[in-house]
Amino acid sequence: MSERYFEDLKVGDRFKSDSYRVSEEQIISFAREFDPQPFHLDRVIADKTIFGGLIASGWHTAAITMRLFVKTLNFAEGAIGLGVDELRWPNAVKPNDSLQVEVEIVDLRESRSKPTHGVVRLRYVTMNHRGEIVQTMFASALVPRRTG
Amino acid sequence: MSERYFEDLKVGDRFKSDSYRVSEEQIISFAREFDPQPFHLDRVIADKTIFGGLIASGWHTAAITMRLFVKTLNFAEGAIGLGVDELRWPNAVKPNDSLQVEVEIVDLRESRSKPTHGVVRLRYVTMNHRGEIVQTMFASALVPRRTG
Repeated sequence: MSERYFEDLKVGDRFKSDSYRVSEEQIISFAREFDPQPFHLDRVIADKTIFGGLIASGWHTAAITMRLFVKTLNFAEGAIGLGVDELRWPNAVKPNDSLQVEVEIVDLRESRSKPTHGVVRLRYVTMNHRGEIVQTMFASALVPRRTG
Repeated sequence: MSERYFEDLKVGDRFKSDSYRVSEEQIISFAREFDPQPFHLDRVIADKTIFGGLIASGWHTAAITMRLFVKTLNFAEGAIGLGVDELRWPNAVKPNDSLQVEVEIVDLRESRSKPTHGVVRLRYVTMNHRGEIVQTMFASALVPRRTG
């Protein structure tokens, strides 16, 4: 797939990622390193919580969303994250869920501080294979200009 | 350390975590799985970018912040993340940086939907060992009440 630049984007463009399946082992391994709480670590304990089963850390869902975004948009030299707003996890990710991300370009402007780059405002929606929304967020990123 | 409940918190309370040192290998390994962009993956390529060297994914910084938060606050049954606002990365995390998180309780209220829990609003500031701020955010979490 060809590399993308700031000039290739239009407000309203939407991009849909491939799917990513997350296993119970991956959920537990991420949680052990970064979010060691009972409902992310142990199936037997998780069954007795309000979730009724093992769920992924929201930060694991966010990291998978980033992976899918990077591979889908494929910016030349990469996209530099400036910040994230309104990150929400309306439904939990469970073992063997397949996740897919849809990204919409909501704003585009030239960078005042870095004339070689533009600033993109994006809206992300991450869904599981049952069509339930597992994450939403807005993010801003610095991406390279072709004419930089 | 004893487990914490909603009733143990007061608005204005501050908690400081231990330190967590992140290696070049950990930065590359996280990026390979979740944020495969050149400035997170390859030291030689990263030297030529605007960062002038390898930097950690912002999502890796966020995940380390969660780890430090979970171990510092130690809520009974765990804290359930409801959402995050104004997540920013003012400085990049570099190999061998030691990170530390300070968390402030900014609001406390009973949960309308889950009388066994309370809702905590938190402000997080993550710093490196040079005293530079690498991440700031607000987050809300559901935590268990002792009298639930």
